[in-house]
Amino acid sequence: MIKEDTRFLIVGLGLIGGSYARALSKKGYWVDAIDTNPDSISYALEQGIIRRGATAPDPVLIEQADIVVFALYPTVMIEWIRKNQSLFRPGTLLTDVAGVKCHVLNVIQDFLREDLEFIGSHPMAGKEVYGVRNSDESIFKIANFIVTPTEKNTQEAIDTARQLGHLLDFHTIVELDPATHDEMIGFVSQLTHAIAVSLMTCNEDEGLQNYTGDSFRDLTRIARINEKMWSELFLLNRKVLIEQIDSFTAELLRMREMLRREDRTALEEMFIHSTRRRALFDR
Amino acid sequence: MIKEDTRFLIVGLGLIGGSYARALSKKGYWVDAIDTNPDSISYALEQGIIRRGATAPDPVLIEQADIVVFALYPTVMIEWIRKNQSLFRPGTLLTDVAGVKCHVLNVIQDFLREDLEFIGSHPMAGKEVYGVRNSDESIFKIANFIVTPTEKNTQEAIDTARQLGHLLDFHTIVELDPATHDEMIGFVSQLTHAIAVSLMTCNEDEGLQNYTGDSFRDLTRIARINEKMWSELFLLNRKVLIEQIDSFTAELLRMREMLRREDRTALEEMFIHSTRRRALFDR
Repeated sequence: MIKEDTRFLIVGLGLIGGSYARALSKKGYWVDAIDTNPDSISYALEQGIIRRGATAPDPVLIEQADIVVFALYPTVMIEWIRKNQSLFRPGTLLTDVAGVKCHVLNVIQDFLREDLEFIGSHPMAGKEVYGVRNSDESIFKIANFIVTPTEKNTQEAIDTARQLGHLLDFHTIVELDPATHDEMIGFVSQLTHAIAVSLMTCNEDEGLQNYTGDSFRDLTRIARINEKMWSELFLLNRKVLIEQIDSFTAELLRMREMLRREDRTALEEMFIHSTRRRALFDR
Repeated sequence: MIKEDTRFLIVGLGLIGGSYARALSKKGYWVDAIDTNPDSISYALEQGIIRRGATAPDPVLIEQADIVVFALYPTVMIEWIRKNQSLFRPGTLLTDVAGVKCHVLNVIQDFLREDLEFIGSHPMAGKEVYGVRNSDESIFKIANFIVTPTEKNTQEAIDTARQLGHLLDFHTIVELDPATHDEMIGFVSQLTHAIAVSLMTCNEDEGLQNYTGDSFRDLTRIARINEKMWSELFLLNRKVLIEQIDSFTAELLRMREMLRREDRTALEEMFIHSTRRRALFDR
């Protein structure tokens, strides 16, 4: 479990890694960080967000860490751990922030040293801006923190990950198995981004912004998208995402068919159903 | 043109009609209203939003109006005007707030008395709540006001409609021909509602709300939808909307194909394009 003197190491000091560092430092924890960008490290040191920083895998920082949070792209994290796992002290707990879990956990838990443990977690928070300079721990306040244990995880590690979610002040902390997590995220996050992007790119009319109401802005806010991160997340979860696209498209075409046959009753029923279901999602 | 002593009559005192009445009364104009709901009329009288009200087509109110704003469902408005047009004083200017224009203008301008004029306008503002009690003129401040003249309209009527948009403090006032309006609205408003509803109804998982991030909430905010109004708007513009659904679906399936063949480069290009286009829509 996390104690007063637990030392954290954040690997990858971007928006999410930086927000973890801010939150944990504010609560008085010891936080170190590694990031290849010297500007991110010097900024975080100046701001007092971290105690110590390095731009390469520093053996001292790594060896002294009790809990390591990887806030890197999934593929980068996997290679980082593969290359540097010899540097961890036995018993170190590793966790992550990745938006897809099955692939990451399959690969890492397969090659990881027996005396280390990796517990998957997914902070469902973000912004449309990047980097430690935009980091902001208040984004966690209305967000969900999902812990995704596998049969390789101990109860101790699961409890510690949940405790971390509480320390970061997440709104809700839940556990999901990795497959259920990836299916859910394929729907609520990846499908929504796929829709927003397609809506944004399916019409090249130059003048549309003059006539746009709030609804179009709402649906396309997330169409400003980090292309490297999201293509990675989409591809790592592509089977699920393709199924979600198919299920959504079938529903939209069902509505198209109601329009074609001018079936007002069916449309009204669909709208009533939609209104009722949406009410469940209000906060 | 609108002068200090111009008298307005609002027919249909719901959210939009009520917001017009509030805005115009605050600026010192004379505003009367007709609504079949006695509660809406008495509330508006109590609040000082209107001077006089009636729950049926009152000949005195109608005869004394200089400008009549219909804030009714399109089909209800058409029948109202057909039935009561004999009561207007010659020279009265009629306008509306309907979200689709071709059908409304074709029908009304065809049967309207020669000594009356109907100019189409569309205030692109709204809320997820209804009725005069929720009316609020501040919803116009960030919204577009679209005037949709036809060859049957005089320059005087067009200018008066634009002046009304200014009086209501709309952010932007533009003119569009009705067909272009309906095509644009089919994309930025109707397609977005069709998507939000389909996204809301394509997955029946009861637990999803526990795991939902902001993006899903943003995309489905408008899935709480007035089923009577929107099925009417959708059906009156169904040809355009079906085309928009087809064009959007084709784009989403293009992305699906990129996922299927694991084409990271194509995905990244699509996301870069999306990000660039979305930037045009920031306010």
